[in-house]
Amino acid sequence: MKEQLRIAIIGLGNRGRTMLKHEMVHMAKEDLTIVGLCDVYEERNQMSLEIMKKFDLPDPELITTDYKEILKMDLDAILIFTSWENHVNIACEAMEAGIYCAVEVAGAYSIEDCWRLVRTYERTKTPLMMLENCCYGKRELMVLEMVRKGLFGDVVYCSGGYCHDLRKEIVHGEENRHYRLRNYLSRNCENYPTHELLPIGRVLNINFGNRFLSLTSTASCAKGLARYCTDNLPEEHKMKHAEFKQGDIVTTVLKCANGETVAITLDTSLPRAYSRGFTVRGTKGAYFEDNDSIFLDDVHHKDYEFNGRPLWGNAAEYEKEYEHPLWKNYDGYGTHDGTDHLVLRAFFESVKAGLEPPIDVYDTATYMAVTALSEQSISEGSTPQAFPDFTSGRWLQRKMPPNKYNL
Amino acid sequence: MKEQLRIAIIGLGNRGRTMLKHEMVHMAKEDLTIVGLCDVYEERNQMSLEIMKKFDLPDPELITTDYKEILKMDLDAILIFTSWENHVNIACEAMEAGIYCAVEVAGAYSIEDCWRLVRTYERTKTPLMMLENCCYGKRELMVLEMVRKGLFGDVVYCSGGYCHDLRKEIVHGEENRHYRLRNYLSRNCENYPTHELLPIGRVLNINFGNRFLSLTSTASCAKGLARYCTDNLPEEHKMKHAEFKQGDIVTTVLKCANGETVAITLDTSLPRAYSRGFTVRGTKGAYFEDNDSIFLDDVHHKDYEFNGRPLWGNAAEYEKEYEHPLWKNYDGYGTHDGTDHLVLRAFFESVKAGLEPPIDVYDTATYMAVTALSEQSISEGSTPQAFPDFTSGRWLQRKMPPNKYNL
Repeated sequence: MKEQLRIAIIGLGNRGRTMLKHEMVHMAKEDLTIVGLCDVYEERNQMSLEIMKKFDLPDPELITTDYKEILKMDLDAILIFTSWENHVNIACEAMEAGIYCAVEVAGAYSIEDCWRLVRTYERTKTPLMMLENCCYGKRELMVLEMVRKGLFGDVVYCSGGYCHDLRKEIVHGEENRHYRLRNYLSRNCENYPTHELLPIGRVLNINFGNRFLSLTSTASCAKGLARYCTDNLPEEHKMKHAEFKQGDIVTTVLKCANGETVAITLDTSLPRAYSRGFTVRGTKGAYFEDNDSIFLDDVHHKDYEFNGRPLWGNAAEYEKEYEHPLWKNYDGYGTHDGTDHLVLRAFFESVKAGLEPPIDVYDTATYMAVTALSEQSISEGSTPQAFPDFTSGRWLQRKMPPNKYNL
Repeated sequence: MKEQLRIAIIGLGNRGRTMLKHEMVHMAKEDLTIVGLCDVYEERNQMSLEIMKKFDLPDPELITTDYKEILKMDLDAILIFTSWENHVNIACEAMEAGIYCAVEVAGAYSIEDCWRLVRTYERTKTPLMMLENCCYGKRELMVLEMVRKGLFGDVVYCSGGYCHDLRKEIVHGEENRHYRLRNYLSRNCENYPTHELLPIGRVLNINFGNRFLSLTSTASCAKGLARYCTDNLPEEHKMKHAEFKQGDIVTTVLKCANGETVAITLDTSLPRAYSRGFTVRGTKGAYFEDNDSIFLDDVHHKDYEFNGRPLWGNAAEYEKEYEHPLWKNYDGYGTHDGTDHLVLRAFFESVKAGLEPPIDVYDTATYMAVTALSEQSISEGSTPQAFPDFTSGRWLQRKMPPNKYNL
């Protein structure tokens, strides 16, 4: 058991600095020492240094624009918050260097990249964790508890979405150097599946007795960003008349080995309120995020079969009995409703104890693969794509090694 | 303009008798004369006769178990409420007999049946209307008004479902002679697409400047009905250990010629509250039935981007300004929230005025085809299916002929 971790952060754009400023500087008063900072843009390194200074933390040993220098350091762990395109390369190099590695969520650009993560892990045995914070969401975890306690019977279907109006972030991507812009200009796929799909995968025991078998993916036309640009940007702005390849809504339907199906929706360039649309449907009950309601056959059928409206918001009534242990005595402090804090603690506690992380390389490869398969399906007119089995059959018997942050 | 219509009803099971008892007996005091009753079960004819007698209506001229006898009568219109399997045959024979024809909603068993409807209409010029009542729903029509007035900008995606827990009706189908039972035992498809899809089709101008190009369909495993049977039926009941082919949740994704996509869900054998999940997404606004909210970019973005909860139920605020003309001064009397009344009046007024109906044979063929295409897609592992163009290119320029019940 390590008491103190020497860590470095690679990628200090908006996401990396948010994690530094709201989470890791606090943890650096306890069990972290931030010894390396790295971004390709030097000013981001300096902004991050300022954050640490404000918090009276000692200066890092190394601040560099070259992540390869970071990987030469004596580190207990690194965290990767770079643009999507660089996650896999850096993660593989970190594993080769024997450094316990966290990667921010992203989708894969190819199935080969997912295999590369798996094979590198299998050769090096260096653990890797995807930092999927939404798995640690209060409702996601409560519903997972209810599923595991059998309240919903057999779950046969789940749905969810990444429903987040990102138009402003995307169209100002040049000023902000945001990787989303180039992806939205040139690609068309389910580019961000993990926020809703990893919690669903836990409900369905994906990689632990179940697996994704195949998917289809269908993209709508792309009009939201173009309309946003013409309505909101000044005439001289480079994006004023931009054309985007990324469809506004991408619907992906997955089939599981045990017969369940999952529908997920990418929904990031049209006006709406944020939601992950988390929905779980079983033979005895259901949860619906979009009106935050629980429907239990034995409890609600008689009175609410034809009018569920009185049930809107009733999920809160189940918190007392079914709140997940990780959320008991936790008030969700930190960013993103407390999920950032929990996912980082899950990572650091796993590193300290030398445990496999709660979201391992097989999970990471599986959930990232959805993006590449979706891109293929869309390019082939929604043709079904077979899902690779990254566990090579071990999903049939795999169990999670003990970890209190397991999902 | 006809003042009085001589009508006959074929199919007097639950649906036919409901329409008779709650709607048509009242209309028979005004502009209908019910001259023929027909069901293959004589006792249903007698139950229907009793309903008419209780209402002091004159006895029909013909009560028969043979619909071919009905089609020999001198009739202004017939209404078909039989089992799904018989809709197309009877409708085609009615068109051949020159009788203006209404068919209850259903899905098609083959694409050939859809073409048969179209070709029979084109040869006979006898109008046919599908009685899709949900098109006349208060919210569906209000949202359609808002779309047409441009409040949502360009619509790029819609979704909906037939989310109705039918477990009890289905498993007792033998006692009730309900056609759903045999369909759920032996088929696996989107068997009931029209309630949500026809209102969506109107939003997207399907058959009037747009058309469905293709679809994929994916079915979950079938566990809801089996669990219901084992939990609720007595040991000696024939269905106690029945196995059903119909997946509990079927997700179907359609692509449109103009680039929009549509996701629909069949959801009839798991516990939940009723919903049609009507959702419309545009570049400037959205409607979500599942929390009955309107989100307009210019009005709500600033305050509700990250918390839509205060908007739940706000759709009612838009009724005053955007209520559809058909719903002004109409309190939704009759069954199914008033939609049965409106769809029947749409039919009868069209017959009286000699107009093409608001949902014509091309619409009927198009929406019924979803079921056959879904069955094909599921049987081929969710492979995309090309959608036939039943208008043979006329959708490019088609306009609705005038009718105050047009949608």
